Amino acid sequence: METNSKIERLALQILELDKLKTVLRRTLISDSSRRENSAEHSWHLAMAVLLFQDLASREVDILKAVKMALIHDIVEIDAGDTFVYDQKNMFEKLNRERKAAERLFLQGSKVPQGENHLGREFYDLWEEYEEGTSPEALYLTSLDRFLPVLLNVHTKGHAWQTHGVKFEQVLAFNRKIENGIPELWVYAEKLIKGCHERGYL
Amino acid sequence: METNSKIERLALQILELDKLKTVLRRTLISDSSRRENSAEHSWHLAMAVLLFQDLASREVDILKAVKMALIHDIVEIDAGDTFVYDQKNMFEKLNRERKAAERLFLQGSKVPQGENHLGREFYDLWEEYEEGTSPEALYLTSLDRFLPVLLNVHTKGHAWQTHGVKFEQVLAFNRKIENGIPELWVYAEKLIKGCHERGYL
Repeated sequence: METNSKIERLALQILELDKLKTVLRRTLISDSSRRENSAEHSWHLAMAVLLFQDLASREVDILKAVKMALIHDIVEIDAGDTFVYDQKNMFEKLNRERKAAERLFLQGSKVPQGENHLGREFYDLWEEYEEGTSPEALYLTSLDRFLPVLLNVHTKGHAWQTHGVKFEQVLAFNRKIENGIPELWVYAEKLIKGCHERGYL
Repeated sequence: METNSKIERLALQILELDKLKTVLRRTLISDSSRRENSAEHSWHLAMAVLLFQDLASREVDILKAVKMALIHDIVEIDAGDTFVYDQKNMFEKLNRERKAAERLFLQGSKVPQGENHLGREFYDLWEEYEEGTSPEALYLTSLDRFLPVLLNVHTKGHAWQTHGVKFEQVLAFNRKIENGIPELWVYAEKLIKGCHERGYL
Protein backbone atom coordinates (compact mmCIF):
# COMPACT_ATOMS: atom_id res chain seq x y z
CA MET A 1 0.00 0.00 0.00
CA GLU A 2 1.30 3.48 -0.89
CA THR A 3 1.60 5.69 2.14
CA ASN A 4 0.97 9.21 0.97
CA SER A 5 -0.46 11.10 3.88
CA LYS A 6 0.40 11.44 7.54
CA ILE A 7 -3.03 9.97 8.35
CA GLU A 8 -2.31 6.86 6.31
CA ARG A 9 1.01 6.35 8.05
CA LEU A 10 -0.62 6.77 11.45
CA ALA A 11 -3.29 4.23 10.47
CA LEU A 12 -0.51 1.78 9.56
CA GLN A 13 1.09 2.32 12.96
CA ILE A 14 -2.25 1.64 14.63
CA LEU A 15 -2.56 -1.60 12.68
CA GLU A 16 1.01 -2.59 13.57
CA LEU A 17 0.23 -1.99 17.26
CA ASP A 18 -2.81 -4.25 16.97
CA LYS A 19 -0.39 -7.21 16.89
CA LEU A 20 0.37 -6.74 20.60
CA LYS A 21 -3.08 -8.25 21.24
CA THR A 22 -1.74 -11.57 19.93
CA VAL A 23 1.33 -11.72 22.19
CA LEU A 24 0.50 -14.11 25.03
CA ARG A 25 1.96 -13.88 28.52
CA ARG A 26 2.35 -16.79 30.97
CA THR A 27 -0.17 -15.33 33.41
CA LEU A 28 -3.85 -16.26 33.34
CA ILE A 29 -6.50 -13.53 33.65
CA SER A 30 -8.24 -13.57 37.02
CA ASP A 31 -11.16 -15.85 36.03
CA SER A 32 -8.57 -18.47 34.86
CA SER A 33 -10.30 -18.72 31.47
CA ARG A 34 -7.25 -17.99 29.32
CA ARG A 35 -3.76 -16.49 29.16
CA GLU A 36 -3.39 -12.74 29.32
CA ASN A 37 -2.11 -10.84 26.29
CA SER A 38 0.37 -7.98 26.38
CA ALA A 39 -2.05 -5.30 25.10
CA GLU A 40 -4.65 -5.82 27.83
CA HIS A 41 -1.83 -6.15 30.39
CA SER A 42 -0.55 -2.73 29.26
CA TRP A 43 -4.00 -1.23 29.82
CA HIS A 44 -4.20 -2.84 33.26
CA LEU A 45 -0.76 -1.48 34.12
CA ALA A 46 -1.68 2.05 32.98
CA MET A 47 -4.75 1.88 35.24
CA ALA A 48 -2.52 0.78 38.14
CA VAL A 49 -0.24 3.76 37.46
CA LEU A 50 -3.24 6.04 38.03
CA LEU A 51 -4.50 4.19 41.09
CA PHE A 52 -1.28 3.80 43.10
CA GLN A 53 0.28 7.24 42.51
CA ASP A 54 -0.05 8.39 46.15
CA LEU A 55 2.13 5.49 47.24
CA ALA A 56 5.16 6.02 44.97
CA SER A 57 8.48 6.24 46.84
CA ARG A 58 9.54 9.29 44.81
CA GLU A 59 7.53 11.98 43.02
CA VAL A 60 6.34 10.68 39.68
CA ASP A 61 5.35 12.52 36.49
CA ILE A 62 2.06 10.73 35.89
CA LEU A 63 1.74 11.43 32.16
CA LYS A 64 5.25 10.08 31.64
CA ALA A 65 4.55 6.99 33.77
CA VAL A 66 1.28 6.29 31.91
CA LYS A 67 3.00 6.63 28.53
CA MET A 68 5.76 4.31 29.76
CA ALA A 69 3.13 1.75 30.79
CA LEU A 70 1.37 1.98 27.44
CA ILE A 71 4.56 1.45 25.40
CA HIS A 72 6.66 -0.77 27.72
CA ASP A 73 5.76 -4.05 26.01
CA ILE A 74 5.39 -2.91 22.38
CA VAL A 75 8.80 -4.43 21.57
CA GLU A 76 7.18 -7.84 22.14
CA ILE A 77 5.45 -7.49 18.77
CA ASP A 78 8.83 -8.50 17.29
CA ALA A 79 10.65 -9.98 20.27
CA GLY A 80 7.83 -11.99 21.90
CA ASP A 81 7.13 -12.16 25.61
CA THR A 82 10.03 -13.45 27.69
CA PHE A 83 9.07 -15.28 30.86
CA VAL A 84 10.85 -13.48 33.66
CA TYR A 85 11.94 -16.70 35.36
CA ASP A 86 13.49 -18.08 32.14
CA GLN A 87 17.11 -17.09 32.80
CA LYS A 88 18.54 -18.33 29.50
CA ASN A 89 16.12 -16.30 27.44
CA MET A 90 16.31 -13.30 29.74
CA PHE A 91 20.01 -13.08 28.87
CA GLU A 92 19.31 -12.48 25.17
CA LYS A 93 16.16 -10.50 25.86
CA LEU A 94 17.70 -7.05 25.80
CA ASN A 95 19.36 -7.57 22.40
CA ARG A 96 16.18 -8.86 20.82
CA GLU A 97 14.14 -6.07 22.33
CA ARG A 98 16.55 -3.34 21.31
CA LYS A 99 16.32 -4.46 17.69
CA ALA A 100 12.55 -4.53 18.03
CA ALA A 101 12.48 -1.05 19.56
CA GLU A 102 14.58 0.30 16.69
CA ARG A 103 12.24 -1.13 14.09
CA LEU A 104 8.96 -0.35 15.84
CA PHE A 105 9.72 3.08 17.26
CA LEU A 106 12.44 4.56 15.06
CA GLN A 107 11.97 3.05 11.61
CA GLY A 108 8.26 3.00 12.37
CA SER A 109 5.70 1.73 9.91
CA LYS A 110 7.19 3.27 6.81
CA VAL A 111 7.47 6.61 8.53
CA PRO A 112 9.93 8.89 6.70
CA GLN A 113 13.15 9.66 8.53
CA GLY A 114 12.87 12.67 10.81
CA GLU A 115 9.12 12.73 10.93
CA ASN A 116 8.54 10.19 13.65
CA HIS A 117 9.16 12.41 16.68
CA LEU A 118 6.84 10.27 18.79
CA GLY A 119 8.97 7.31 17.80
CA ARG A 120 12.00 8.92 19.40
CA GLU A 121 10.00 9.82 22.52
CA PHE A 122 8.71 6.24 22.81
CA TYR A 123 12.17 4.77 22.21
CA ASP A 124 13.66 6.94 24.95
CA LEU A 125 10.83 6.03 27.34
CA TRP A 126 11.33 2.33 26.62
CA GLU A 127 15.07 2.67 27.20
CA GLU A 128 14.52 4.60 30.44
CA TYR A 129 12.22 1.84 31.64
CA GLU A 130 14.79 -0.83 30.79
CA GLU A 131 17.47 1.10 32.70
CA GLY A 132 15.08 1.18 35.62
CA THR A 133 16.52 4.04 37.64
CA SER A 134 14.25 7.08 37.11
CA PRO A 135 11.34 7.64 39.52
CA GLU A 136 8.85 6.67 36.80
CA ALA A 137 10.80 3.53 35.86
CA LEU A 138 11.08 2.45 39.51
CA TYR A 139 7.37 3.07 40.09
CA LEU A 140 6.33 1.24 36.92
CA THR A 141 8.63 -1.70 37.67
CA SER A 142 6.89 -2.16 41.01
CA LEU A 143 3.47 -2.30 39.38
CA ASP A 144 4.64 -4.41 36.43
CA ARG A 145 5.85 -7.03 38.90
CA PHE A 146 2.92 -6.75 41.24
CA LEU A 147 0.18 -7.36 38.65
CA PRO A 148 1.33 -10.88 37.68
CA VAL A 149 1.80 -11.72 41.38
CA LEU A 150 -1.80 -10.69 42.02
CA LEU A 151 -3.09 -12.68 39.03
CA ASN A 152 -1.05 -15.71 40.07
CA VAL A 153 -2.45 -15.50 43.58
CA HIS A 154 -5.98 -15.49 42.16
CA THR A 155 -5.35 -18.34 39.72
CA LYS A 156 -3.81 -20.64 42.33
CA GLY A 157 -0.26 -20.01 41.14
CA HIS A 158 -1.01 -21.35 37.66
CA ALA A 159 1.89 -19.75 35.76
CA TRP A 160 4.37 -20.51 38.57
CA GLN A 161 3.30 -24.13 38.80
CA THR A 162 3.16 -24.70 35.03
CA HIS A 163 6.73 -23.45 34.64
CA GLY A 164 8.17 -24.96 37.82
CA VAL A 165 9.06 -21.64 39.39
CA LYS A 166 10.27 -21.87 42.99
CA PHE A 167 9.09 -19.87 46.01
CA GLU A 168 12.58 -18.39 46.54
CA GLN A 169 12.77 -17.24 42.92
CA VAL A 170 9.43 -15.46 43.18
CA LEU A 171 10.49 -13.75 46.40
CA ALA A 172 13.86 -12.71 44.99
CA PHE A 173 12.51 -11.43 41.66
CA ASN A 174 9.67 -9.44 43.14
CA ARG A 175 11.62 -7.82 45.95
CA LYS A 176 12.24 -4.96 43.49
CA ILE A 177 8.62 -3.94 44.11
CA GLU A 178 9.97 -2.34 47.28
CA ASN A 179 12.04 0.27 45.43
CA GLY A 180 9.13 2.00 43.71
CA ILE A 181 6.29 1.38 46.20
CA PRO A 182 7.60 0.24 49.60
CA GLU A 183 4.17 -0.53 51.11
CA LEU A 184 3.24 -2.64 48.11
CA TRP A 185 6.12 -5.00 48.75
CA VAL A 186 4.95 -5.61 52.32
CA TYR A 187 1.58 -6.65 50.88
CA ALA A 188 2.99 -8.63 47.94
CA GLU A 189 5.41 -10.55 50.17
CA LYS A 190 2.48 -11.57 52.38
CA LEU A 191 0.55 -12.75 49.32
CA ILE A 192 3.50 -14.76 48.00
CA LYS A 193 4.09 -16.40 51.39
CA GLY A 194 0.39 -17.20 51.57
CA CYS A 195 0.61 -18.96 48.21
CA HIS A 196 3.59 -20.94 49.43
CA GLU A 197 1.71 -22.01 52.57
CA ARG A 198 -1.32 -23.11 50.53
CA GLY A 199 0.93 -25.11 48.19
CA TYR A 200 0.31 -22.95 45.11
CA LEU A 201 4.03 -22.24 44.94
CA MET B 1 -12.06 -10.80 52.42
CA GLU B 2 -11.48 -8.10 55.05
CA THR B 3 -10.18 -4.91 53.53
CA ASN B 4 -7.98 -3.28 56.10
CA SER B 5 -5.42 -1.27 54.28
CA LYS B 6 -5.44 1.12 51.35
CA ILE B 7 -3.17 -1.31 49.47
CA GLU B 8 -5.66 -4.15 49.90
CA ARG B 9 -8.49 -1.99 48.60
CA LEU B 10 -6.41 -0.93 45.61
CA ALA B 11 -5.58 -4.56 44.90
CA LEU B 12 -9.31 -5.34 44.91
CA GLN B 13 -9.92 -2.54 42.44
CA ILE B 14 -7.19 -3.92 40.18
CA LEU B 15 -8.86 -7.35 40.31
CA GLU B 16 -12.25 -5.80 39.56
CA LEU B 17 -10.78 -4.03 36.54
CA ASP B 18 -9.40 -7.34 35.30
CA LYS B 19 -12.95 -8.27 34.29
CA LEU B 20 -12.85 -5.78 31.41
CA LYS B 21 -10.60 -8.32 29.64
CA THR B 22 -13.61 -10.65 29.39
CA VAL B 23 -16.00 -8.11 27.80
CA LEU B 24 -16.09 -8.91 24.08
CA ARG B 25 -16.73 -6.35 21.36
CA ARG B 26 -18.19 -7.09 17.90
CA THR B 27 -14.99 -6.16 16.11
CA LEU B 28 -12.33 -8.74 15.24
CA ILE B 29 -8.66 -7.98 15.88
CA SER B 30 -6.72 -7.31 12.67
CA ASP B 31 -5.55 -10.90 12.05
CA SER B 32 -9.24 -12.01 12.20
CA SER B 33 -8.37 -14.69 14.76
CA ARG B 34 -10.89 -13.62 17.42
CA ARG B 35 -13.10 -10.84 18.76
CA GLU B 36 -11.50 -7.88 20.45
CA ASN B 37 -12.05 -7.29 24.15
CA SER B 38 -12.68 -3.92 25.79
CA ALA B 39 -9.44 -3.86 27.83
CA GLU B 40 -7.11 -4.27 24.85
CA HIS B 41 -9.31 -1.85 22.87
CA SER B 42 -8.81 0.73 25.64
CA TRP B 43 -5.03 0.30 25.36
CA HIS B 44 -5.20 0.66 21.60
CA LEU B 45 -7.30 3.81 21.97
CA ALA B 46 -4.89 5.34 24.51
CA MET B 47 -2.04 4.73 22.02
CA ALA B 48 -4.10 6.43 19.31
CA VAL B 49 -4.61 9.42 21.64
CA LEU B 50 -0.82 9.80 21.80
CA LEU B 51 -0.27 9.27 18.07
CA PHE B 52 -2.91 11.59 16.58
CA GLN B 53 -2.57 14.57 18.94
CA ASP B 54 -1.19 16.96 16.28
CA LEU B 55 -4.38 16.51 14.26
CA ALA B 56 -7.00 17.34 16.90
CA SER B 57 -9.43 20.08 15.86
CA ARG B 58 -9.06 21.86 19.22
CA GLU B 59 -6.26 21.93 21.75
CA VAL B 60 -6.35 18.80 23.89
CA ASP B 61 -5.03 18.10 27.40
CA ILE B 62 -3.23 14.85 26.60
CA LEU B 63 -3.12 13.42 30.14
CA LYS B 64 -6.87 14.01 30.44
CA ALA B 65 -7.54 12.44 27.03
CA VAL B 66 -5.38 9.40 27.85
CA LYS B 67 -7.16 8.91 31.19
CA MET B 68 -10.50 9.23 29.42
CA ALA B 69 -9.44 6.54 26.93
CA LEU B 70 -8.29 4.22 29.71
CA ILE B 71 -11.55 4.49 31.67
CA HIS B 72 -14.14 5.09 28.91
CA ASP B 73 -15.28 1.45 28.72
CA ILE B 74 -14.92 0.36 32.36
CA VAL B 75 -18.70 0.63 32.83
CA GLU B 76 -18.98 -2.37 30.49
CA ILE B 77 -17.81 -4.59 33.36
CA ASP B 78 -21.38 -4.29 34.63
CA ALA B 79 -23.27 -3.03 31.59
CA GLY B 80 -21.68 -5.13 28.84
CA ASP B 81 -20.65 -3.87 25.42
CA THR B 82 -23.50 -2.33 23.43
CA PHE B 83 -23.19 -2.65 19.66
CA VAL B 84 -23.37 0.90 18.35
CA TYR B 85 -25.69 -0.06 15.48
CA ASP B 86 -28.18 -1.78 17.82
CA GLN B 87 -30.68 1.08 18.22
CA LYS B 88 -32.97 -0.60 20.72
CA ASN B 89 -30.17 -1.38 23.13
CA MET B 90 -28.47 1.96 22.59
CA PHE B 91 -31.60 3.60 23.97
CA GLU B 92 -31.22 1.92 27.36
CA LYS B 93 -27.45 2.04 27.25
CA LEU B 94 -26.99 5.29 29.15
CA ASN B 95 -29.14 4.16 32.09
CA ARG B 96 -27.33 0.85 32.42
CA GLU B 97 -23.96 2.53 32.12
CA ARG B 98 -24.77 5.25 34.64
CA LYS B 99 -25.65 2.62 37.23
CA ALA B 100 -22.44 0.81 36.38
CA ALA B 101 -20.39 4.00 36.70
CA GLU B 102 -21.89 4.67 40.12
CA ARG B 103 -20.98 1.21 41.37
CA LEU B 104 -17.56 0.93 39.76
CA PHE B 105 -16.26 4.45 40.28
CA LEU B 106 -18.11 5.87 43.27
CA GLN B 107 -18.98 2.93 45.48
CA GLY B 108 -15.74 1.33 44.29
CA SER B 109 -14.60 -2.03 45.46
CA LYS B 110 -15.56 -1.65 49.08
CA VAL B 111 -13.83 1.70 49.24
CA PRO B 112 -15.01 3.74 52.23
CA GLN B 113 -17.08 6.81 51.43
CA GLY B 114 -15.00 9.91 50.81
CA GLU B 115 -11.75 8.08 50.25
CA ASN B 116 -12.14 7.23 46.60
CA HIS B 117 -11.11 10.57 45.10
CA LEU B 118 -9.92 8.86 41.93
CA GLY B 119 -13.38 7.35 41.69
CA ARG B 120 -14.91 10.83 41.50
CA GLU B 121 -12.31 11.93 38.93
CA PHE B 122 -13.00 8.84 36.82
CA TYR B 123 -16.77 9.26 37.11
CA ASP B 124 -16.54 12.87 35.96
CA LEU B 125 -14.27 11.91 33.05
CA TRP B 126 -16.67 9.17 32.00
CA GLU B 127 -19.61 11.61 32.17
CA GLU B 128 -17.71 14.24 30.21
CA TYR B 129 -16.98 11.64 27.53
CA GLU B 130 -20.65 10.65 27.36
CA GLU B 131 -21.67 14.31 26.99
CA GLY B 132 -19.18 14.51 24.15
CA THR B 133 -18.66 18.26 23.95
CA SER B 134 -15.28 19.05 25.55
CA PRO B 135 -12.18 19.11 23.29
CA GLU B 136 -10.94 15.86 24.85
CA ALA B 137 -14.33 14.14 24.44
CA LEU B 138 -14.60 15.22 20.81
CA TYR B 139 -11.06 14.06 20.09
CA LEU B 140 -11.55 10.72 21.82
CA THR B 141 -14.90 10.12 20.10
CA SER B 142 -13.19 10.49 16.72
CA LEU B 143 -10.59 7.88 17.60
CA ASP B 144 -13.06 5.56 19.35
CA ARG B 145 -15.11 5.45 16.12
CA PHE B 146 -12.12 5.27 13.80
CA LEU B 147 -10.47 2.21 15.38
CA PRO B 148 -13.38 -0.19 14.72
CA VAL B 149 -13.69 1.20 11.17
CA LEU B 150 -10.02 0.42 10.60
CA LEU B 151 -10.35 -3.09 12.06
CA ASN B 152 -13.50 -3.74 10.03
CA VAL B 153 -11.71 -2.65 6.87
CA HIS B 154 -8.90 -5.10 7.63
CA THR B 155 -11.22 -7.98 8.48
CA LYS B 156 -13.35 -7.62 5.32
CA GLY B 157 -16.21 -5.90 7.16
CA HIS B 158 -16.73 -8.91 9.44
CA ALA B 159 -18.67 -7.18 12.26
CA TRP B 160 -20.74 -5.12 9.82
CA GLN B 161 -21.66 -8.16 7.74
CA THR B 162 -22.35 -10.42 10.74
CA HIS B 163 -24.79 -7.91 12.17
CA GLY B 164 -26.36 -6.75 8.89
CA VAL B 165 -25.21 -3.16 9.23
CA LYS B 166 -25.82 -1.01 6.15
CA PHE B 167 -23.40 1.26 4.31
CA GLU B 168 -25.51 4.36 5.03
CA GLN B 169 -25.61 3.57 8.78
CA VAL B 170 -21.83 3.27 8.91
CA LEU B 171 -21.39 6.56 7.07
CA ALA B 172 -23.92 8.36 9.27
CA PHE B 173 -22.59 7.01 12.57
CA ASN B 174 -18.95 7.69 11.82
CA ARG B 175 -19.39 11.18 10.42
CA LYS B 176 -18.81 12.40 13.98
CA ILE B 177 -15.14 11.56 13.43
CA GLU B 178 -15.01 14.91 11.61
CA ASN B 179 -15.69 16.96 14.75
CA GLY B 180 -12.59 15.88 16.65
CA ILE B 181 -10.14 15.18 13.81
CA PRO B 182 -11.36 16.65 10.51
CA GLU B 183 -8.64 15.04 8.34
CA LEU B 184 -9.34 11.64 9.82
CA TRP B 185 -12.90 11.71 8.55
CA VAL B 186 -11.71 12.38 4.98
CA TYR B 187 -9.59 9.22 5.27
CA ALA B 188 -12.22 7.13 7.08
CA GLU B 189 -14.93 8.04 4.58
CA LYS B 190 -12.65 6.87 1.76
CA LEU B 191 -12.04 3.58 3.60
CA ILE B 192 -15.77 3.03 4.22
CA LYS B 193 -16.63 3.75 0.57
CA GLY B 194 -13.86 1.37 -0.51
CA CYS B 195 -15.42 -1.37 1.64
CA HIS B 196 -18.79 -0.68 0.06
CA GLU B 197 -17.30 -0.95 -3.45
CA ARG B 198 -15.59 -4.24 -2.61
CA GLY B 199 -18.84 -5.63 -1.23
CA TYR B 200 -17.64 -5.87 2.41
CA LEU B 201 -20.47 -3.53 3.40
